[in-house]
Amino acid sequence: MTMIAHPQSLHFAAPLLLQSGKSIRAYDLAYETYGLLNADKSNAVLVCHALNASHHVAGVYAHDDVKIQEKSAGWWDNMIGPGKPVDTNHFFVIGVNNLGSCFGSTGPMHVNPDTQKVYGADFPVVTVEDWVNAQALLMDKLGIETLAAVMGGSLGGMQALSWTLQYPDRLRHAVVVASAPNLTAENIAFNEVARRAIVTDPDFHEGHFYQHGVIPKRGLRIARMIGHITYLSDDVMNAKFGRQLKQSLALESSKSAVNDNSDANFDANADAYSYSTQEVEFQIESYLRHQGDKFAEYFDANTYLLITRALDYFDPARKFSGNLTKALELAKAKFLLISFTTDWRFSPSRSRELVKALLDNNRDVSYAEIDAPHGHDAFLLDDHRYTSLIRSYFDSILSEIRSKVTMKAAA
Amino acid sequence: MTMIAHPQSLHFAAPLLLQSGKSIRAYDLAYETYGLLNADKSNAVLVCHALNASHHVAGVYAHDDVKIQEKSAGWWDNMIGPGKPVDTNHFFVIGVNNLGSCFGSTGPMHVNPDTQKVYGADFPVVTVEDWVNAQALLMDKLGIETLAAVMGGSLGGMQALSWTLQYPDRLRHAVVVASAPNLTAENIAFNEVARRAIVTDPDFHEGHFYQHGVIPKRGLRIARMIGHITYLSDDVMNAKFGRQLKQSLALESSKSAVNDNSDANFDANADAYSYSTQEVEFQIESYLRHQGDKFAEYFDANTYLLITRALDYFDPARKFSGNLTKALELAKAKFLLISFTTDWRFSPSRSRELVKALLDNNRDVSYAEIDAPHGHDAFLLDDHRYTSLIRSYFDSILSEIRSKVTMKAAA
Repeated sequence: MTMIAHPQSLHFAAPLLLQSGKSIRAYDLAYETYGLLNADKSNAVLVCHALNASHHVAGVYAHDDVKIQEKSAGWWDNMIGPGKPVDTNHFFVIGVNNLGSCFGSTGPMHVNPDTQKVYGADFPVVTVEDWVNAQALLMDKLGIETLAAVMGGSLGGMQALSWTLQYPDRLRHAVVVASAPNLTAENIAFNEVARRAIVTDPDFHEGHFYQHGVIPKRGLRIARMIGHITYLSDDVMNAKFGRQLKQSLALESSKSAVNDNSDANFDANADAYSYSTQEVEFQIESYLRHQGDKFAEYFDANTYLLITRALDYFDPARKFSGNLTKALELAKAKFLLISFTTDWRFSPSRSRELVKALLDNNRDVSYAEIDAPHGHDAFLLDDHRYTSLIRSYFDSILSEIRSKVTMKAAA
Repeated sequence: MTMIAHPQSLHFAAPLLLQSGKSIRAYDLAYETYGLLNADKSNAVLVCHALNASHHVAGVYAHDDVKIQEKSAGWWDNMIGPGKPVDTNHFFVIGVNNLGSCFGSTGPMHVNPDTQKVYGADFPVVTVEDWVNAQALLMDKLGIETLAAVMGGSLGGMQALSWTLQYPDRLRHAVVVASAPNLTAENIAFNEVARRAIVTDPDFHEGHFYQHGVIPKRGLRIARMIGHITYLSDDVMNAKFGRQLKQSLALESSKSAVNDNSDANFDANADAYSYSTQEVEFQIESYLRHQGDKFAEYFDANTYLLITRALDYFDPARKFSGNLTKALELAKAKFLLISFTTDWRFSPSRSRELVKALLDNNRDVSYAEIDAPHGHDAFLLDDHRYTSLIRSYFDSILSEIRSKVTMKAAA
């Protein structure tokens, strides 16, 4: 049964002081909820999103008048819903759009109440910590004091981790998937190239392109293409695209359509390079260009800068001179960490750093390294070992909740 | 003792038929030679260059009026010269600039004799095979029938490999360093993003930017930044730059300069993020921007497109339905292959594919996988295990040459 999602929004009139020292005077947070909050409000699960996602975590919209990428099912719809690993028949799940995003919460496309102008590049830099603070204020408004769990993949996992340090008493479990305690130099490097592509696009206009009626699409396309390369593993790219020519695939499908047996002739044509530096020659080029084009249609350039910077800046060990064990001392939650063997963006070794630092602090931590071929993207894909692990973990959270209710009833 | 290099050039009046079916009517090849050709012309070594290098392989120029990046020592000066691993006291070494380059040989910046206009984007697509054909014609003019060795790293290694297939009787040894039998989908993907950055730069003008008096520097910068990320290993990037702030390094050096002891104060400042999406925050960003800026000053955009495409297209197994063993049947040379453990651009597994295919054909092949931390860049750096291996191999080539001379003298 398809679950219908209802986007909602809440206004926050009090200013939010940011890590940078600046503040946002007033703001809205877009969010969605799935399932029902139980009587003692102990079954709430907050799901944090990664780079280009939103509060639309699960289900589909009943109407169609929403942004392109939101027309489809929520970005973690395979994981969250009735009967799914995070079962909304039992859990009350909240998806929230982060500040600075372009999907509903206050961001660079909105009007700055102080100047009555669109923020653009003047939107203040937001950090993972700022997002978590805003999420906590949303929980206040929803009347949720303690979350059963906070979960997320990639940048979303960083938020789940940060919850355990900023609000150690407000969550019982953190589910951190395909994430890291901070970015490596290489991660930052990829972000920086993407940002330079956007910022040096003549249509960027110092981040105030809205007034000029243009969008720095060239830069956004490049940024997205770079991103896509780092989301996939070398192996899966070879398996999916290899060195196949665009031409050759087109011919193969026309061949099968007409059920032609003259394979030799067809192959000879299909194998011919077109010898061009600018036309699409290989399948992988076609795929990347398509991804870039799609992204440039719906994603905001200033949001891209903000979100990649939030990734760069996240580093809880920083104020402890890089000592992650010291940094995680504050955490009280129980942890489930998951990584994927072929993820070279947030490699298993980065998750293992977290596991070690948590164990150093005698924290309750479960860790699984899943041998999946899909690279970083694996956290969004279906893999039985992965989804059944999440299911088991949430089943155990549910048992905890029920035993507490039983104990209360008995008392 | 510093070796002085003398750039030379030869004109070729006969058209060169290219793999694409097009041809170049007339062209020049820039080259340099080091050492002396022996009496029976058996000590010649051809060195093929990679993406952004040239015929200036070793030594320095006596004068200064040459392009920025050619002011310095040749790109393989640590490897080639008097007393060096490829010892020019014994070998006659030839460096040649490939067609389509921007460093002296005929390329997109030159005038098309057919139209009397600058080629620009109309310069025909050249392949590794085309380059090897042109190199063979240069060898003809230099009176060299058989090369003692052809050597190269990365794209240069592909040329050395192609020599063994196109002119199996004209070389005795192929030294193929940090190379591959073809590019993977991921390799092509990185090339494609770099090309898109250049082609979509408004200053590219469909490749005819010369007439507009502009250079697509934005695109070139992005291309070079992407390149640099893939040349380095994650580990070496972390060791070199880590998450260090630009600010912090500047302060550290000022600190040591004034010999100030108030470390605490300095560190507090040095550790402060500036919270900007566009300013340089991390050292790695500063490094990449600098590399991009430098590159955009001296490298031609059309050349970048041509050379990355030559990389994409190279695939000797292609006409044998991907059967590399079959493809290498033609090779007669003895091989030295070298790869570096942390090279993720041309990983050791790609070199091992070549080793296997050569062994399948009972070819004489030596292979070394060197545990170096520097990624793909390692092939240009000093590593004793690497340089001493090259030295030993060339010593053995020298013994071969000498024993042949002795045999001839005895006969």
